[in-house]
Amino acid sequence: MNIALITIGNELLSGFTVNTNAAWIGNHVLQVGGNIVWHQTIGDNKDEIHASLNQVSSDIRAVIITGGLGPTHDDLTAIALYEYTGDLPVFDEDYWQFLQKRLDKRNLNLPEINRNQALKPKKGHCIPNPLGSARGLHFKMNDKEIFVLPGVPREMKAMMNSTVLPWIEEQSTGGMTITTIRTTGIMESGLAEKLGEIVNALSDNIKIAFLPQFTGVDIRVSGMDKTAVKQKVDEICIQVKKYIYGQNTDRLEDIISQMLIAKDLSISTAESCTGGLVGHRLTNVPGSSDYFLGGIISYSNYVKENNLGVAKSTLEQYGAVSAETAIEMAENVRLKLGSDLGLSVTGIAGPGGGTSEKPVGLTFIALTDGNNTRVKEFRFLSDRQLNKNASSQTALNMVRLYLLNE
Amino acid sequence: MNIALITIGNELLSGFTVNTNAAWIGNHVLQVGGNIVWHQTIGDNKDEIHASLNQVSSDIRAVIITGGLGPTHDDLTAIALYEYTGDLPVFDEDYWQFLQKRLDKRNLNLPEINRNQALKPKKGHCIPNPLGSARGLHFKMNDKEIFVLPGVPREMKAMMNSTVLPWIEEQSTGGMTITTIRTTGIMESGLAEKLGEIVNALSDNIKIAFLPQFTGVDIRVSGMDKTAVKQKVDEICIQVKKYIYGQNTDRLEDIISQMLIAKDLSISTAESCTGGLVGHRLTNVPGSSDYFLGGIISYSNYVKENNLGVAKSTLEQYGAVSAETAIEMAENVRLKLGSDLGLSVTGIAGPGGGTSEKPVGLTFIALTDGNNTRVKEFRFLSDRQLNKNASSQTALNMVRLYLLNE
Repeated sequence: MNIALITIGNELLSGFTVNTNAAWIGNHVLQVGGNIVWHQTIGDNKDEIHASLNQVSSDIRAVIITGGLGPTHDDLTAIALYEYTGDLPVFDEDYWQFLQKRLDKRNLNLPEINRNQALKPKKGHCIPNPLGSARGLHFKMNDKEIFVLPGVPREMKAMMNSTVLPWIEEQSTGGMTITTIRTTGIMESGLAEKLGEIVNALSDNIKIAFLPQFTGVDIRVSGMDKTAVKQKVDEICIQVKKYIYGQNTDRLEDIISQMLIAKDLSISTAESCTGGLVGHRLTNVPGSSDYFLGGIISYSNYVKENNLGVAKSTLEQYGAVSAETAIEMAENVRLKLGSDLGLSVTGIAGPGGGTSEKPVGLTFIALTDGNNTRVKEFRFLSDRQLNKNASSQTALNMVRLYLLNE
Repeated sequence: MNIALITIGNELLSGFTVNTNAAWIGNHVLQVGGNIVWHQTIGDNKDEIHASLNQVSSDIRAVIITGGLGPTHDDLTAIALYEYTGDLPVFDEDYWQFLQKRLDKRNLNLPEINRNQALKPKKGHCIPNPLGSARGLHFKMNDKEIFVLPGVPREMKAMMNSTVLPWIEEQSTGGMTITTIRTTGIMESGLAEKLGEIVNALSDNIKIAFLPQFTGVDIRVSGMDKTAVKQKVDEICIQVKKYIYGQNTDRLEDIISQMLIAKDLSISTAESCTGGLVGHRLTNVPGSSDYFLGGIISYSNYVKENNLGVAKSTLEQYGAVSAETAIEMAENVRLKLGSDLGLSVTGIAGPGGGTSEKPVGLTFIALTDGNNTRVKEFRFLSDRQLNKNASSQTALNMVRLYLLNE
């Protein structure tokens, strides 16, 4: 089913707001069997709203409109739609009472400016808003359904989920199944090579896309046939198992969390170039206090030596960015904090600090369990932020691979 | 000058890619005197490109088109534009040689599929691409200029900067001046109250917008008159000076960096609920090793006691989330790491771990210089990520306020 999207807002045109609503709507509509085939952004202006609706082509079955439903003078969407559809706004005394009561509870007054929030269409319907006062509108005009929603992302999403997406799903023959396989530790070209046979033998009803980022490559498998998508995902998982850490919205730190809890192991960190990012990511997971004891951010050599106990001779002979220092950092933080595993990162994040022998991006990561310590050398990039992200991702992936093989 | 934007790409409609290009273009066009008044996103389809160009209204002076300029079969934008404008593509032997030579240097072959990258319009012009092989196109049709650019953000931005934006600026009577004043530590309503007189006395040519986030409120001042904008910015800065940490893209960590360097002071951190985020942010600034020595992430009580030296009696009597513990954390990390300042954060990030007495969001932040230790209690929110962000922002702001008054 072809669907048009009209997003309304001067803030969108001027670029002060990035239109994340459009991406969210596009993706969720796809999953219930619709297709956004045309999307227009216009300013808060009645004539432009009318012009935009006139440009919607005849093969479009539904129009989703977001933005401009608030109480202020800028919010012209509702008026424009009443005019365009020829429907009439009537005052909804019950809803006005409801709004007043809700504010009474919080000892607040409901300003008169909000009266337009209590209008409802005579022929069309209101779409309930569980999170705000601006209700949505649902009109039917000629052969098209028109859904009007607020632009506030959380309100829009709640109303899409409760009203618009179920309607699309009901009208559709079937939604698209989309599975994203998340990998790290391998380049796009490496994946393409290993998956060459699978990609070349694809039938028309399945699509595979590689989405490279600096922290790993996502593989997106999509198609209308749920079983066929699942089968293709399984084939890929077998072929490149080692590199896959999760699916869809899984984060590497979530996966490690499950593994550490399952194996009842604790971990601590010794970070130099990442400056605390590894600890930050580990503690993004609720309940991480069950396995993350803490860490030492040894950004200066003074802290590496005096607080983490890296030998002065190691720092002098091999330097702070070396396999030897990384090993001592991991082993010492494990002992000092009393955890099962010790993880360390030391590198040159840049832009300064690089030499021809030790360029920006050079990073050593070590992991120890007390019996064995593994250390690996990496050559990342020239950008500070990317280096920190890549280092933290690679460090967490070393933990994942260790736990996988235990 | 009114400008239309057409962004082409199935990935945009399906929501797999967020259209950040549109926001970037909208904002940069505004600053050189143009206005994006209409923006359409369509799929990679010749007919749709033609239909979209036909929908551009007559008061539009220029059309910017992005996407679909690559070498593959999906990339139909150039063909669609040649057809639409009636211009003819001719093969540019010089550019083809140039592309081949560039790849020769890297020992790579130039596949035949790339031949379409060497086409140039007979009447129109090519727009140089300093970062890729796909050149842009510039057509003139009736009274409109049409600029066609690749969708790859860094290539698009480079070509906008070198060619399209200068053209718009030349045609315009003057760009809009936009200054964003960044504040933290005060709510939107508080700012609105303190700035009431300034906002109410605004002339028509200046706009002020409050943009609240959980880490602070940005105040955007915009207008065509550069001097008037500057004057209004100055007035606001005087009125709410204490809450302002920077302008435009300044980050709080950048400002602290400048202040610490100017005062030749070093700092270390003791983090509990933020798990390393404060250290991560401090080390996002190049050169932060000049003042950030490191820190101790004392996520568990064991680490608080054994590695950071918080007294067992303090933890037992007041708990890990208390003013007393925060004070000892800050003072001890300062002494242990030998820094001028010690900064600590301890709180309940949630979603678990809260009690009626100590709810999720309760956070204590302490800062010491060895002579004086200040500690403050905050009640943040119920969301883990927001709590970590708000805690790190507030902690860094305490450092800023301390340095401001020193």
